[in-house]
Amino acid sequence: MSKNSQNTSQSLGEFDLIERFFKRSSFSQNQSVILGIGDDCALLEVNPGEVVAASIDTLVSGVHFFADEKPFNIGYKAVMVNVSDLAAMGAQPRWLTLALTLPEVNENWLELFSQGLFQALDETGMSLVGGDTTRGPLSMSLQVQGTVEKDKALKRSGMQVGDALYVSGPLGGAALGLAYRLGKIAFNDENDGKAALLVDQALCLPKARWQFGLILKEYANSCIDISDGLVSDLNHLLKQSNCGAKVNLDDIPYHPAFNYLNFDLNKKWQYALAGGEDYELCFSVSQKNKEKLLNILRKENVKIFQVGEAVSGGMLSFYYKSKAESLKLSGYEHF
Amino acid sequence: MSKNSQNTSQSLGEFDLIERFFKRSSFSQNQSVILGIGDDCALLEVNPGEVVAASIDTLVSGVHFFADEKPFNIGYKAVMVNVSDLAAMGAQPRWLTLALTLPEVNENWLELFSQGLFQALDETGMSLVGGDTTRGPLSMSLQVQGTVEKDKALKRSGMQVGDALYVSGPLGGAALGLAYRLGKIAFNDENDGKAALLVDQALCLPKARWQFGLILKEYANSCIDISDGLVSDLNHLLKQSNCGAKVNLDDIPYHPAFNYLNFDLNKKWQYALAGGEDYELCFSVSQKNKEKLLNILRKENVKIFQVGEAVSGGMLSFYYKSKAESLKLSGYEHF
Repeated sequence: MSKNSQNTSQSLGEFDLIERFFKRSSFSQNQSVILGIGDDCALLEVNPGEVVAASIDTLVSGVHFFADEKPFNIGYKAVMVNVSDLAAMGAQPRWLTLALTLPEVNENWLELFSQGLFQALDETGMSLVGGDTTRGPLSMSLQVQGTVEKDKALKRSGMQVGDALYVSGPLGGAALGLAYRLGKIAFNDENDGKAALLVDQALCLPKARWQFGLILKEYANSCIDISDGLVSDLNHLLKQSNCGAKVNLDDIPYHPAFNYLNFDLNKKWQYALAGGEDYELCFSVSQKNKEKLLNILRKENVKIFQVGEAVSGGMLSFYYKSKAESLKLSGYEHF
Repeated sequence: MSKNSQNTSQSLGEFDLIERFFKRSSFSQNQSVILGIGDDCALLEVNPGEVVAASIDTLVSGVHFFADEKPFNIGYKAVMVNVSDLAAMGAQPRWLTLALTLPEVNENWLELFSQGLFQALDETGMSLVGGDTTRGPLSMSLQVQGTVEKDKALKRSGMQVGDALYVSGPLGGAALGLAYRLGKIAFNDENDGKAALLVDQALCLPKARWQFGLILKEYANSCIDISDGLVSDLNHLLKQSNCGAKVNLDDIPYHPAFNYLNFDLNKKWQYALAGGEDYELCFSVSQKNKEKLLNILRKENVKIFQVGEAVSGGMLSFYYKSKAESLKLSGYEHF
């Protein structure tokens, strides 16, 4: 927590910003927060036997979100995108620190932004425990921390040959949302633009799969969240696990909005497999644990989708209608 | 850790940046780092009975450092500024996560920046455990974490009436460094510009007082790091402790470079008390613990400077040659 706040000459100093928009009464904070906003550091008590999982991400206006995006959505998504990293570890979301860079103090913007932020914190049971505001081009960095048992944390490196390969939900919705925003696609949709609404929600108000991650850590061998598209993220799993994989394109679960588009197969695959920002989980489960996991999920009424299996070698190959298919996908790279 | 890295089409993806400049072999990492760079989250084992102290700060080019500042200095200072927050809690520095926003990939800049970063990490015994790089205007957010016993963490709120009030070292050096850079001052200095060199170091390569903080946590009642100037930061202590303070201006320790300037008293006070960025500690100690602390520090050859005492009421008052002095200081506020 920075402390640039004598507040003598100007109407709204940093301390006011934190006090006004980001401080909650200690009553509403988790018992584990020994010391939260208002000191140099936040002090966080960790449960015996549990470790801290930490992740940091920056979102820049015009790069990660539209400059005119609703501030509620920016705040909500900023949290969820980070919680998705915790979900991929099987960690229980716990604490957030926020570094917010603003070109000016816009109280209305801050009010709505903080509402979105706290909505996501409430949904995930997290506490904001520290912050820093800075003048500069609109951007923000969020560090989330969660806890998970040391020997159960889901890693990218744990995939074994023979594992079944799954995704936790339909893909391509966020990519369609982005294309719709940019005017690149239109839906054959007579239901009051229901498809447009769905893909906009997928893009702007993603739900991180942390509750599912808490189940998964008991059964899966490896896991990653799908932020850059299935192909890109699955390649990380393969590289770090020294595995290959066969993916059956027939089994990819597509976002329902694809039903309102006349895409050819290649275009559909481009959106669903390389589009990014779905924040579903991609994971592998041993044949031994597969039935146990499916039994639990049936009881919880959670659906997952097997899309392939882990094989030896480092190659990722695709099959469609039982024939090898060489995908041509455009990638996604920040630099 | 974000994962935007298929690295198929471009020469240097994010993963390469992390791998090349920020990843160290697991051998060189602290044993407590169960999982560091290369997965969705870093996993950090906390010692039994200890808690995590976390702090986040953003530094923006042109706001927090000169756009043409040496990248080594930027990296070094970015860490030290954050470690200073840990020092103020009496926490042992442990882990860093870094979110770096860059307008372009400049390998030379990154090489030097990472050298400065790791120099500071090595000096403070910290490990970089996660990171994120993003394209955008040059800025960075750093989250540091340290550990400290729950009942010994130094807080801003612990000051008691009657406490002796101290600072850990000379003040005003960084403010002089900034003024010198901006061409606002010149030194009457014939020793090869030694004063200029000293203040430039004070500004660009500050040393956080974390080792001193580890001693202090055993004895002090309250503590804050002096990032915005003594008056501003002391006011935070007073507000959160419901205390007042009397400060004797005769006892302020000044940076040696003041000897090469013809400042009048008011100007000297402005620089030393409101200049900011000294990263010394301001703290209060009970009369009972005062001698114990001084004895320990004599053995360690560490000097501290009593500048006043805590009194009842919320006022901060100043004395010079035993007379009340009403200071007129220009403040410092990011917004």
